[in-house]
Amino acid sequence: MSSLSSAPYKGTRDYYPADKRRQNYIFGVWARMAKRFGYEEYGAPLLEPLEVYTAKSGQELVGEQTYRFTDRGDRDVVIRPEMTPSISRMVAAKRQELAYPARWFSIANFMRYERPQRGREREFWQLNVDMFGADGVQADAEIISLGFETMKAFGAKPDMYVIKLNSRKVIDAMMHDYLGLDPIQAPLMVKLFDRKNKISNEAFRDQAIEIFGTEQAKEGLSKIAQLLLAKEIENLPKEIAENPAVEELHQLFSILKGRGVTNATFDITLMRGFDYYTGTVFEFFDTHPDNNRAMFGGGRYDGLVGLFGAEPLSAVGMAPGLSMTELFLDSHGLMPEFTSTTEVYVAVLGDALPGASTLTARLRDEGVNTELDITGRKIDRQIKTAVKKQIPYVLFVGEEELKNETYNLKDTHTGDEETLSFERLVTRVKDRRHKHSTDVDELFE
Amino acid sequence: MSSLSSAPYKGTRDYYPADKRRQNYIFGVWARMAKRFGYEEYGAPLLEPLEVYTAKSGQELVGEQTYRFTDRGDRDVVIRPEMTPSISRMVAAKRQELAYPARWFSIANFMRYERPQRGREREFWQLNVDMFGADGVQADAEIISLGFETMKAFGAKPDMYVIKLNSRKVIDAMMHDYLGLDPIQAPLMVKLFDRKNKISNEAFRDQAIEIFGTEQAKEGLSKIAQLLLAKEIENLPKEIAENPAVEELHQLFSILKGRGVTNATFDITLMRGFDYYTGTVFEFFDTHPDNNRAMFGGGRYDGLVGLFGAEPLSAVGMAPGLSMTELFLDSHGLMPEFTSTTEVYVAVLGDALPGASTLTARLRDEGVNTELDITGRKIDRQIKTAVKKQIPYVLFVGEEELKNETYNLKDTHTGDEETLSFERLVTRVKDRRHKHSTDVDELFE
Repeated sequence: MSSLSSAPYKGTRDYYPADKRRQNYIFGVWARMAKRFGYEEYGAPLLEPLEVYTAKSGQELVGEQTYRFTDRGDRDVVIRPEMTPSISRMVAAKRQELAYPARWFSIANFMRYERPQRGREREFWQLNVDMFGADGVQADAEIISLGFETMKAFGAKPDMYVIKLNSRKVIDAMMHDYLGLDPIQAPLMVKLFDRKNKISNEAFRDQAIEIFGTEQAKEGLSKIAQLLLAKEIENLPKEIAENPAVEELHQLFSILKGRGVTNATFDITLMRGFDYYTGTVFEFFDTHPDNNRAMFGGGRYDGLVGLFGAEPLSAVGMAPGLSMTELFLDSHGLMPEFTSTTEVYVAVLGDALPGASTLTARLRDEGVNTELDITGRKIDRQIKTAVKKQIPYVLFVGEEELKNETYNLKDTHTGDEETLSFERLVTRVKDRRHKHSTDVDELFE
Repeated sequence: MSSLSSAPYKGTRDYYPADKRRQNYIFGVWARMAKRFGYEEYGAPLLEPLEVYTAKSGQELVGEQTYRFTDRGDRDVVIRPEMTPSISRMVAAKRQELAYPARWFSIANFMRYERPQRGREREFWQLNVDMFGADGVQADAEIISLGFETMKAFGAKPDMYVIKLNSRKVIDAMMHDYLGLDPIQAPLMVKLFDRKNKISNEAFRDQAIEIFGTEQAKEGLSKIAQLLLAKEIENLPKEIAENPAVEELHQLFSILKGRGVTNATFDITLMRGFDYYTGTVFEFFDTHPDNNRAMFGGGRYDGLVGLFGAEPLSAVGMAPGLSMTELFLDSHGLMPEFTSTTEVYVAVLGDALPGASTLTARLRDEGVNTELDITGRKIDRQIKTAVKKQIPYVLFVGEEELKNETYNLKDTHTGDEETLSFERLVTRVKDRRHKHSTDVDELFE
């Protein structure tokens, strides 16, 4: 038999311990900050019935990017490509029993069949944070401010990124009242703006002309040009400015300012891809020259819960992704260095394994993460293993040490060695833990 | 349009916050104990190529129970039904670079198309703990003793369950040297023993006769009967007893005894389902009358890494599951009660939202998980929400309180109310946290 390939499935990643430490750091900060804001964790199934997505997730996602198949019982199912429909379904199922506003978060994996590239994998991880049952800009502001505080917890300064804001209602006013587009043209123009940063100015112009039609095109393009020059929310043309949604955006900016969010900015061109958004939409955008791109976004989607046969319920949320967060932290030099979660490697001298095993059990009882060498190898090979695993300490245990109840502890980073009693040894390791603890330690606080 | 169903996909569970707290408790104990023993966390992809399982996972699993499909690029893929092949593939891919023995763990979800029943879902969660590159019973003993210590961390006493032990080598001696079965008959008999507890004695007898064939049947059945009577490892018939693997089992029992594992027992009928096991196999078996069943198991599988084109490497591991652990904890009254991860619900009086929002930010900065009511509702409805969410404290914040800088804190469990300064309030909440902290708080220590 020829041997099997050891490569992971295309577009997915193997997380070896050193990669997993980075992932856990990000998950830890996410979970900590979501809980700080009073959000509770939930979990949803990996598979959902196909129709959960056909309704509102958007053509491209469902038609081209889903992992869909028919199960052995003839059900059309999809590996979840996003969380919003699942959580809306869950809320709908217990619509009458839940306490509102419901504040929920999850950290989960998703799959989309896309061309893998930098920051985009077929299997990807996201934090999803959502609030159900609260209308209005106070709720929108809370979600955005949670995004801002989470960035701060990662060490991000407000000048490293911007938060772009818009509203689907403002977009509607722009499409219908300002550009004069009909219900067929308007969604096409929304999709075109959504792709604006991914295509050339010429391509944008050509496709816009096609949507307007020859008669409308000249005036339409000129209006778009004026709008793009306006930039500030104060300079919006009358047809948009008098829409009540603009006043809501003003309030949103004012609340965000009160909460210390200093890098929020209005962007009339921000659309967000999903069909389900109904109000405020936003995007956290990295301004680093090497990584100038949207990191994540979110918005209000008041119509989704009602699709599942429940009384309608307002909703707002966001979904930061793991890969984009990693790119941001790496670009800005904010990713910490990690050592192993194992703190002590017990190297065994001679035939001391039974005694070393008992000592190891005592260390574990004291809460010290301890690996015991059970191989009977030469001592230098044991040390090499500990160093390669990035374990901070090696403890040498032989018959002599066990008799004297003092042990040599070697710091694998500095190379320093100390002779310590069991109690001093435990204290030494715990002191280091508290000095080096990162946010990841608090994941389940 | 008719509305969509709000039910989850068949055989999967929605984890609402109250369910998720139980899940997180179990995940937390698992991760803490794996790290205590020096195991490092890793992650593997959700999908694997089909051939990863066809080699060694067993006919029933691959042929009838996998979620397999063809992706948009015509690749045959499977949603992972277990972790062992994935982790073996990962180790094979970095065979030369890793430090050995490698000690790794993961907590992940899997899918199998089975009939859903108590303790068995189509999507299920497992801890996988594995050691690569250590031969011999010391490694087997470490994995089993990690299982034992994990049960202890959940509050389990040794008399609540037994650890059944056997060896594939002993099974081989039983099949070939004792029962005289040929290489076609032996695997059929192994599968029959594997189903022994699920079928009647008559069915077992009939199928055994079929495997033996009429000539061999009488003697064969009589030998099986003698073997089942023997029970103790000391009473094994000569043809099995003289196999070197029996001496290894003796050593294993002796090491386990030295490590304080008092409930391990030999069971010649224990086979374990997967084709990849090559040495020690074991099973943790619940002895509670309401839940008398196998909880989880593991064993040695020295041949798997080599299948992926790498130099062969010894391996031993185990995989406790979430549902079985929940059933065990519930049956034995060991599952703790949980409150919300949110500690304080800020109820807002009158128009005090802006000031209450600032106070909430201060509480969060102090590390207190705080939910802010942004609805402007009547105060009794705000309190009801906090109680329904099982949040331990409600803090009342109005203009008066903000001016005096003292606040009323209500314990939602006892109903007691106290008037406290900001500092005393933070201390009060943190004291409660330390008093009520469960193992779940330590997941990422």
